[in-house]
Amino acid sequence: MNRFEPQSLSALGAIYHMNDAARALYYVLHSLQHRGQDAAGMACTDGERVVCEKNNGMLSEIFQEGVLAELNGCSALGHVRLASAQDRDLENVQPIVVRAHQGHFAIATTGTIQNAAALRDAMEADGLIFQGVSDAELIAHLIQFYPGHLFEKIMQACSKLEGSYTFVVMTKNTMYAMRSPDGIHPLWIAQSGASTVVASESAAFTMLDIDSMREVRPGELIRLGLEGAQSFETGDGEPARPCAMEYVYYARPDSMLENRNVHAVREDCGILLAEEETVDADIVVGVPDTAMSAAAAFARALNKPYEIGLIKNRYIGSTYIRPSAQQREQGIRTRLNAISSIVRGKRVYLVDDSLVKGFTAKRLCQLMKEAGASEVHLRIASPRIAHPCVYGYEEARAGQLAAARYTDEEMCQLFGADSIRFLDEDAFRLCVGPASCMACMNGRYVDVDPKNGRK
Amino acid sequence: MNRFEPQSLSALGAIYHMNDAARALYYVLHSLQHRGQDAAGMACTDGERVVCEKNNGMLSEIFQEGVLAELNGCSALGHVRLASAQDRDLENVQPIVVRAHQGHFAIATTGTIQNAAALRDAMEADGLIFQGVSDAELIAHLIQFYPGHLFEKIMQACSKLEGSYTFVVMTKNTMYAMRSPDGIHPLWIAQSGASTVVASESAAFTMLDIDSMREVRPGELIRLGLEGAQSFETGDGEPARPCAMEYVYYARPDSMLENRNVHAVREDCGILLAEEETVDADIVVGVPDTAMSAAAAFARALNKPYEIGLIKNRYIGSTYIRPSAQQREQGIRTRLNAISSIVRGKRVYLVDDSLVKGFTAKRLCQLMKEAGASEVHLRIASPRIAHPCVYGYEEARAGQLAAARYTDEEMCQLFGADSIRFLDEDAFRLCVGPASCMACMNGRYVDVDPKNGRK
Amino acid sequence: MNRFEPQSLSALGAIYHMNDAARALYYVLHSLQHRGQDAAGMACTDGERVVCEKNNGMLSEIFQEGVLAELNGCSALGHVRLASAQDRDLENVQPIVVRAHQGHFAIATTGTIQNAAALRDAMEADGLIFQGVSDAELIAHLIQFYPGHLFEKIMQACSKLEGSYTFVVMTKNTMYAMRSPDGIHPLWIAQSGASTVVASESAAFTMLDIDSMREVRPGELIRLGLEGAQSFETGDGEPARPCAMEYVYYARPDSMLENRNVHAVREDCGILLAEEETVDADIVVGVPDTAMSAAAAFARALNKPYEIGLIKNRYIGSTYIRPSAQQREQGIRTRLNAISSIVRGKRVYLVDDSLVKGFTAKRLCQLMKEAGASEVHLRIASPRIAHPCVYGYEEARAGQLAAARYTDEEMCQLFGADSIRFLDEDAFRLCVGPASCMACMNGRYVDVDPKNGRK
Amino acid sequence: MNRFEPQSLSALGAIYHMNDAARALYYVLHSLQHRGQDAAGMACTDGERVVCEKNNGMLSEIFQEGVLAELNGCSALGHVRLASAQDRDLENVQPIVVRAHQGHFAIATTGTIQNAAALRDAMEADGLIFQGVSDAELIAHLIQFYPGHLFEKIMQACSKLEGSYTFVVMTKNTMYAMRSPDGIHPLWIAQSGASTVVASESAAFTMLDIDSMREVRPGELIRLGLEGAQSFETGDGEPARPCAMEYVYYARPDSMLENRNVHAVREDCGILLAEEETVDADIVVGVPDTAMSAAAAFARALNKPYEIGLIKNRYIGSTYIRPSAQQREQGIRTRLNAISSIVRGKRVYLVDDSLVKGFTAKRLCQLMKEAGASEVHLRIASPRIAHPCVYGYEEARAGQLAAARYTDEEMCQLFGADSIRFLDEDAFRLCVGPASCMACMNGRYVDVDPKNGRK
Repeated sequence: MNRFEPQSLSALGAIYHMNDAARALYYVLHSLQHRGQDAAGMACTDGERVVCEKNNGMLSEIFQEGVLAELNGCSALGHVRLASAQDRDLENVQPIVVRAHQGHFAIATTGTIQNAAALRDAMEADGLIFQGVSDAELIAHLIQFYPGHLFEKIMQACSKLEGSYTFVVMTKNTMYAMRSPDGIHPLWIAQSGASTVVASESAAFTMLDIDSMREVRPGELIRLGLEGAQSFETGDGEPARPCAMEYVYYARPDSMLENRNVHAVREDCGILLAEEETVDADIVVGVPDTAMSAAAAFARALNKPYEIGLIKNRYIGSTYIRPSAQQREQGIRTRLNAISSIVRGKRVYLVDDSLVKGFTAKRLCQLMKEAGASEVHLRIASPRIAHPCVYGYEEARAGQLAAARYTDEEMCQLFGADSIRFLDEDAFRLCVGPASCMACMNGRYVDVDPKNGRK
Repeated sequence: MNRFEPQSLSALGAIYHMNDAARALYYVLHSLQHRGQDAAGMACTDGERVVCEKNNGMLSEIFQEGVLAELNGCSALGHVRLASAQDRDLENVQPIVVRAHQGHFAIATTGTIQNAAALRDAMEADGLIFQGVSDAELIAHLIQFYPGHLFEKIMQACSKLEGSYTFVVMTKNTMYAMRSPDGIHPLWIAQSGASTVVASESAAFTMLDIDSMREVRPGELIRLGLEGAQSFETGDGEPARPCAMEYVYYARPDSMLENRNVHAVREDCGILLAEEETVDADIVVGVPDTAMSAAAAFARALNKPYEIGLIKNRYIGSTYIRPSAQQREQGIRTRLNAISSIVRGKRVYLVDDSLVKGFTAKRLCQLMKEAGASEVHLRIASPRIAHPCVYGYEEARAGQLAAARYTDEEMCQLFGADSIRFLDEDAFRLCVGPASCMACMNGRYVDVDPKNGRK
Repeated sequence: MNRFEPQSLSALGAIYHMNDAARALYYVLHSLQHRGQDAAGMACTDGERVVCEKNNGMLSEIFQEGVLAELNGCSALGHVRLASAQDRDLENVQPIVVRAHQGHFAIATTGTIQNAAALRDAMEADGLIFQGVSDAELIAHLIQFYPGHLFEKIMQACSKLEGSYTFVVMTKNTMYAMRSPDGIHPLWIAQSGASTVVASESAAFTMLDIDSMREVRPGELIRLGLEGAQSFETGDGEPARPCAMEYVYYARPDSMLENRNVHAVREDCGILLAEEETVDADIVVGVPDTAMSAAAAFARALNKPYEIGLIKNRYIGSTYIRPSAQQREQGIRTRLNAISSIVRGKRVYLVDDSLVKGFTAKRLCQLMKEAGASEVHLRIASPRIAHPCVYGYEEARAGQLAAARYTDEEMCQLFGADSIRFLDEDAFRLCVGPASCMACMNGRYVDVDPKNGRK
Repeated sequence: MNRFEPQSLSALGAIYHMNDAARALYYVLHSLQHRGQDAAGMACTDGERVVCEKNNGMLSEIFQEGVLAELNGCSALGHVRLASAQDRDLENVQPIVVRAHQGHFAIATTGTIQNAAALRDAMEADGLIFQGVSDAELIAHLIQFYPGHLFEKIMQACSKLEGSYTFVVMTKNTMYAMRSPDGIHPLWIAQSGASTVVASESAAFTMLDIDSMREVRPGELIRLGLEGAQSFETGDGEPARPCAMEYVYYARPDSMLENRNVHAVREDCGILLAEEETVDADIVVGVPDTAMSAAAAFARALNKPYEIGLIKNRYIGSTYIRPSAQQREQGIRTRLNAISSIVRGKRVYLVDDSLVKGFTAKRLCQLMKEAGASEVHLRIASPRIAHPCVYGYEEARAGQLAAARYTDEEMCQLFGADSIRFLDEDAFRLCVGPASCMACMNGRYVDVDPKNGRK
């Protein structure tokens, strides 16, 4: 699937106790760049000071040789994020560095805090000021608000936070990594010799030589210090409820989530999608890049040829000039091309990973028909998304979700498809595991009332 | 396949008689950016003057909104190219604009002129000066050298050129498009309403609404003027000998070449490669992006699961800091990742599109083994490349070509593969057609003695 | 004088209630750019939101056409500053925007808060967090800390602040401008039709058509709202004690300070310096740019020719590559040139405005001698600086001040001058007025114990 | 004077036989940057190859550390130029490098070739091509056109060139420096140990330690080789006719021209201007920067106070956003400020160095009156400019020259001045020497018929 609408995705990476940590972290963050290309930052400590470099832009634009050379230290904490056009403020670029009298610390977060507004209101009423709107600043305030040693402060802060999040705090000689008790957002930890690496996705570890890795447990707070690592449980022992859409769209195929490989889950989705197929068509075309695993498996299961009928243009970066509405009217299309010689005269199973607002689906069906496909059967390798996400992923509101507005028949007509079918919810649950959060599909929000916040 | 060594690839695009031609050409060139990301340029005419903007860098870095706004005109000619580190001189960036007293013209070329040195020597002896080393400047000189009307001058120039090339010349009110008689390098022409579009690959036309398109014939010179298009034959009527490696690696899968779709040819290669398979393995892994068509077809033919076992990192642009040798030693890998969960314990068919120097093959086999593959069977969906290219594509010398230096057994050992197999030459010829140039595979150079130039 | 050492200088500008306020403010800030070229920012409000754009770099690098176009509003607040190499953190770039639940506000400051550390400690102990080290963030915290309406909060905050400062606070519909009771740092206010303009120097007003202007009184807090301007006194009615070095070096010659024109004060210094002259020399050479007013007046008073014997190189910006130590050894000099044809064989009065560490003086004497001057008589148009500044201007420590370390004779020898003379303290006081702060010259610190902070 | 209209000014610098020549040349070119900030380039040779880096922009923008590091060689040739908005083509940026079969060479020029069109036409008729419109390309063609050794070729080329120019040619082991027989454009040569330095102004030599320097004679061709320097005369032995406006406006005050220091000539102009003064006024104000030498001397001669009544804004670089016409109407003025406190109620002698189109003069008189001057007496320290320049300096056409269109009385009225007076032509000739070219003042064009080209 190719999304054009902004979402609040982000990723964090951190390295504790490694020579020239920032330079190694650069490659870790680079492997997480698919989770956000709009802003990036790294804080670094040499055991004395905490320095930070961050800005709007892609990682490689901000961190050039001269800048990396100055981030010389033994631990580093970094962040990449996707920002909406309305939120380009530097104050929201992470990590946030707190220059407190008992010592500086840096913090980076992913996810969302559901009671953020209430916490901010209460703290502002107490005279605290907020310079941005990031959760990182909020959690920093909350940590600093409580007395005691940093560990105790973080534990206290966590007890007030409601939401789905992960964060890492770095001081000049310690590091804390936390994953919210619901485990909706991923967080991983690995050992590489005497060094520890933390990252939002396990695929980031393949940048380095690592000895072992594991997922941070839901509710687990890990403290890294010179004396070693300690783990503290803040949750109730419930299993993680990883976001099902991580498997479908967000995560890299080479990442693991709760012992499942993302690519393998996508293949399972494709296979189960095939099992319920009733229409006969000639070829299978997958939407690059995220739907290709499912589409290939779907084709294999149906014993139909898997064809590369859609080509994605690379080289669309931040300086790329997008065609105007008028130019698009005139036919200028730049992101995806259909290959006429493949689809002409064919009945096409067009497999996408998911369907949110339906804009992409509509354009794809149109492309297929223009390229000469005689029939287009849209197949979505995940269930209908009919409920808004309240856990910090998709920002589309209920009223914008195609599956909440239209029946399948209406969608068919709207998109110009000959048929449309979604993966069945039960089948999908088999693929992603019973614990995965599927609130956007079935409306079963755990802990949260989507209208009024946390239950 | 992922190549790291520079090659002299390039592409041209041109639009005759269209409103705001440069802006439309921007998208045409963008779709050709895979043929060169090191320099780009566009010349444009409003019927009065010929202006030109070009520089080192990617298309979208050079052409930003303000620059495009100034390239206001009714015809435009553009170029993208891949440059070696040794050749970053601005003088070689195309188009070249000639400001002659009988009128300005711009020229852009692809391919290579085999008798370039002799022509330059002769012209320099006549007092002409060269500011760069591009073929575009050479052809400009040759055109200008002959008397008469521009059409006659171009015809005369072509009669002196020996080589495999295409070029487009644009004046303030005409345009000429030429493809060399051997037809090794591709050139396409399309109609879009009253406008004519010329491009190195047919996939570029999908950016616009077009009514019809065809390949420029070998030896054909097309003249576009306000009175319409005229075609002149300069060749001997022999069929084109398109570069076989265009199908294998250079062209986009959604392009056509001599009535063959590139993706379809790649699939054919995969199928024929499968027919001769003798080893039994568990899964098929293709090297992204160019080998994926062949690998998927290979898997289908063998009825083996096609798995996405290698992930390519996007976001590696010109500002990206490559890891140092020392960092690579420490395990920092950034371009391709193998997915352990997929390949661990598996016997892998690793399918690549071609094998030139063998560096990539060696690294890929290593990645597979480190990720836990029990066996790696390297399968190349094209024949051994054992002879240098003299037609302006691959720059590797004979002594650098793996298949010229090693037997298959030696390659196996060198790469750490358990077996290696190439597509048979006859089988390959069935896929790319009998006329295709396969000189780099079989050493049969037509017209050219690879040691002494043109026969 | 040409200074090479970083100082903590800065300037602010603000416009209340003007069409496209940010664009006009751009020119106001541009006229204050001499007070800081390292970072710049503008916050802007359209009556609904407060948006902010800021970064490291010069004003014109940060604010290009596209950025200005987005800062569309009716009021704007901006800042430029000089930063040390150690303080390039984005968190310290102003304005600071506070996103508080009772409404957003932006703040920018100049000067220094002497009890900053104590205030920070107290607030941190209360759980507040600081992301940077700027006074703007400190004052923002302090304002937010107190209850009540914004006006009351600011009044309360001011009652806690000890130091020499100015600040402006901008909300979506009001603006507050404050100058500390000591009046050491300048702040001006002007009317331009229905709009009000605030700036650190009066010269900034010449960018716009203004009807009237006046200096903000020491201790005065001005509130600008839709119902008009109101003034509140927070001080004790003591007259301002403007920094004497503003007249000597910091301010533009076309600025006013406490009813004195800066250029005129510099001329007075030159005239009084001449009155005590005992040495006879041939020509007067002033150090560009800041010493030229004094030097020209000095020459006139002595009836000696004023010669342009030193030329300053323009075009030394942030991307300029400074010569290495080795290159300077080899004679590469780039900032100032002496004109041999003017100084050769001449006895030169070399007039500089002030002397801090003595590095510049030494280099200038050397340049003069190399250019052939037979004698160099160094004349400083202000008294010896032998005490550190505690009011937020010069950052040199006592141990670095030439006049604190050396006698005049030692300086002569050190610099290679034939004589050295400073303007007498009493004479200087006549020029700058009796109220001006001369603590760096005479050690008379008002309100502050330079060792222990505020008395 | 401050000019806003583009002119075709430029400067060249070259270093023969010096360690890391390009780095030293960087500083030489930097000191010539006042002659052109729109484009810059350096060619460099290591004795084997000639490489070149050039682009639009200021020297320090194009040559950053990484670029300089790659220009490693023993000789270097550079150029800076001022370009009109219509001429931003990269093809015209110098040096031009010619890659000829008998060896590469680089060439850079200043000035103008009067028979350029005729030479181009003839060469184009012979089949040569021009990619730009620079004289450098023209001379390169002409050199290459003739047979024989490079020295002979250059001698032949010079015999065909009509015009006022200088050029330097650099091969991998030799360098040639040429100044046209009329000597209108300046060229200097200096020794620095075993190295030779060539530059358009003598002030450029002060960047380096030099042993001796002299002006290249009119018509002199100097050849630098490993065996030493040789000089050849191509002229008729007539003395140089240096452009009188070099003294007035173009050259740095610390440069020498035909044994006259520029600053000293400007002072002489000011003194002679004072001798004919008939009006009594209170203060003298000079227009920064170029009129200040004359203004200060004028004041001294009249025994009137020289006041700094106009302040120039620095920091106006290429990224600076100029105020729109509408904003200027609203009073936004950014380049020059008048100091009210100095000029209010005063009768002002406003001294500028020259008057071309009169736009600046008008604005300055207006500024003075707005600042409160009771009378403004405009004094121009050079004669009326009433004839176009045909020697490659000022580009204004006859119809644009104020002194060609208006009487003094009309100018007074137009500018809002109370009186206007120019320096008498004979007096001016005393200052600049009898040989100086004053064609733009008196219409006496030597060698050239301004309507029809060279006589």
